[in-house]
Amino acid sequence: TPQHAVTFGDLQEKQIEEVLWAFKDRVNDLKKDRRFRYILLFKNFGEAAGASLEHPHCQLIALPVIPKRVKEEVDGAKLFYDLKERCIFCDIIRQEAAGARLVTESERFTVIEPYAPRFPFETWVLPKRHQSHFEDSDAPTLQNLAWVMRATMRKIDHVLERPAYNFIVHSAPIQDEPLPHFHWHLEIIPKLTKVAGFEWGTGFYINPTPPEESARFLREAGLV
Amino acid sequence: TPQHAVTFGDLQEKQIEEVLWAFKDRVNDLKKDRRFRYILLFKNFGEAAGASLEHPHCQLIALPVIPKRVKEEVDGAKLFYDLKERCIFCDIIRQEAAGARLVTESERFTVIEPYAPRFPFETWVLPKRHQSHFEDSDAPTLQNLAWVMRATMRKIDHVLERPAYNFIVHSAPIQDEPLPHFHWHLEIIPKLTKVAGFEWGTGFYINPTPPEESARFLREAGLV
Repeated sequence: TPQHAVTFGDLQEKQIEEVLWAFKDRVNDLKKDRRFRYILLFKNFGEAAGASLEHPHCQLIALPVIPKRVKEEVDGAKLFYDLKERCIFCDIIRQEAAGARLVTESERFTVIEPYAPRFPFETWVLPKRHQSHFEDSDAPTLQNLAWVMRATMRKIDHVLERPAYNFIVHSAPIQDEPLPHFHWHLEIIPKLTKVAGFEWGTGFYINPTPPEESARFLREAGLV
Repeated sequence: TPQHAVTFGDLQEKQIEEVLWAFKDRVNDLKKDRRFRYILLFKNFGEAAGASLEHPHCQLIALPVIPKRVKEEVDGAKLFYDLKERCIFCDIIRQEAAGARLVTESERFTVIEPYAPRFPFETWVLPKRHQSHFEDSDAPTLQNLAWVMRATMRKIDHVLERPAYNFIVHSAPIQDEPLPHFHWHLEIIPKLTKVAGFEWGTGFYINPTPPEESARFLREAGLV
């Protein structure tokens, strides 16, 4: 964007849609290079979240290996699928539909605070229709995602006063066929707590804010 | 300590030794409670490293489960042991003995910058004699550890100008017998970089500082 001082939530819906198309187009192009095994799409906003540039930007990193965390998430989802013959994310969407952890929803997306979040106000944006790869999203889905991303980021900016945050697209490894057990989604992590010795030593996270409480704050912020 | 404004490196050797005895005694006492499966000893110093109290302190958290990260480290070491019939940490100590990543050493300890550190100036303190559990350390070992900890923290404080840091004792799960494949050690992580979207999305870490370079800085600081 030529605007130096805007946050993601400040952008117009149409502008966000263009960002999402850039995500999709770049992934689909890089995918042709068979050396790449994974493409990570993410955004760091604010110094506390590790942003090294001040100007609004997102990042894409293509990797020749499947990252450890991606493998853990996909393998975990596979374990559930093998046991239940259902996608765990589809189950979560159904279960949270009218619950205390729902933040907002649109025609094609559900936004929730997950059941056991690592961080206060950790927020997930999930497509309602099962799909393992972000880059397979069609035009109406990207349009609807732009709306829901804008609404969600405005709620977060309003309630937490423009916090530093990371958002990360969780998508299946690019060379995989569509997976019945994995469901792409977006995770937004406002930077409110510090990762310290306990977290580094255990891989467990201390989170003082129940997701039901953060969801209520975000719901009550309305569509600012 | 009654002194409010001291860092770990400011303490006298004898005072550090007493801290280490407190670690050992508390672990050995808590170990009697069979509900506990792991005891984490760590220190957060400075706000950037997540310290919530200003007064000098260390922390101990006893857990009814074996943490994810501990399991990964112990399992990884076991894999190496099954393959090579040697402890991987004993191998590292031998290999780094006179190398470019050595920071300092004492009669009973080796201090190195590990081969592929996640963070700039990540520093490991390893006992030369194989032992899986920190709390089995005898009196001369704790005394020698106090010396080497003080020397190391003073080097770090000098080169990095009293940085925020975490240190974490990596020890075997308390209810295990002595393990031939795991080797307790201490990891010191100065807080110089931010964990951002790439790290959260992958579990991989971007580190701009080669360990050979940070080791050289720390070696050249002498025994300040």
